[in-house]
Amino acid sequence: MIDEDRLSETFAALASSTRRAILARLARGEANVNELAGPFDVTLPTISKHIKVLERAGLITRSQRAQYRPCALDPAPLEEISAWAEQYRPVWEARFDRMSDYLTRLRSHPRTDDHDD
Amino acid sequence: MIDEDRLSETFAALASSTRRAILARLARGEANVNELAGPFDVTLPTISKHIKVLERAGLITRSQRAQYRPCALDPAPLEEISAWAEQYRPVWEARFDRMSDYLTRLRSHPRTDDHDD
Repeated sequence: MIDEDRLSETFAALASSTRRAILARLARGEANVNELAGPFDVTLPTISKHIKVLERAGLITRSQRAQYRPCALDPAPLEEISAWAEQYRPVWEARFDRMSDYLTRLRSHPRTDDHDD
Repeated sequence: MIDEDRLSETFAALASSTRRAILARLARGEANVNELAGPFDVTLPTISKHIKVLERAGLITRSQRAQYRPCALDPAPLEEISAWAEQYRPVWEARFDRMSDYLTRLRSHPRTDDHDD
């Protein structure tokens, strides 16, 4: 069972392109706050706030061992939201199938509304 | 290419268990506001607000034809967030593989730290 509050927190944490970019960077390996701030046109305190939101949502962990406290990606919540979205796959695939059927009919009987043969 | 603002809006819309429950209901078929409010312990204006958020995010469409304006699920943004999360599958699968390797080693060499044979 997925915890609904946890799911809400994950979705809220992902509702920011900067936070998603931080996760994309961490997927390539650990990084500290300065390294994460580098590519973005934002201040260090702003990056720190984004990191705290991601940390609370369980999307990143911070090492206690080193003084510069590198951040690492924890993919577990991403796996949960992937599983959540996958529930709806039959809905979007049904829509695609209907469109595909329609295009097939259109190709085999072009403009049946004009030519009633 | 996925529009980053649109993705942020989808994630923000999904950061509510009530809104996710509305989508789950609509996956079973169209429903109007009264039908959607039924199972929830919230007022009609609150449900209407949730519906507006989902509509702005493109997750539901409302029919103009009928006076009671039924809501229908549009799964397209769900397919987008599924594809977005799937990018991270290699990260969570790598973690699972490491854990699986560890458990295999543990089974073949139990408590190697205690017994150095």
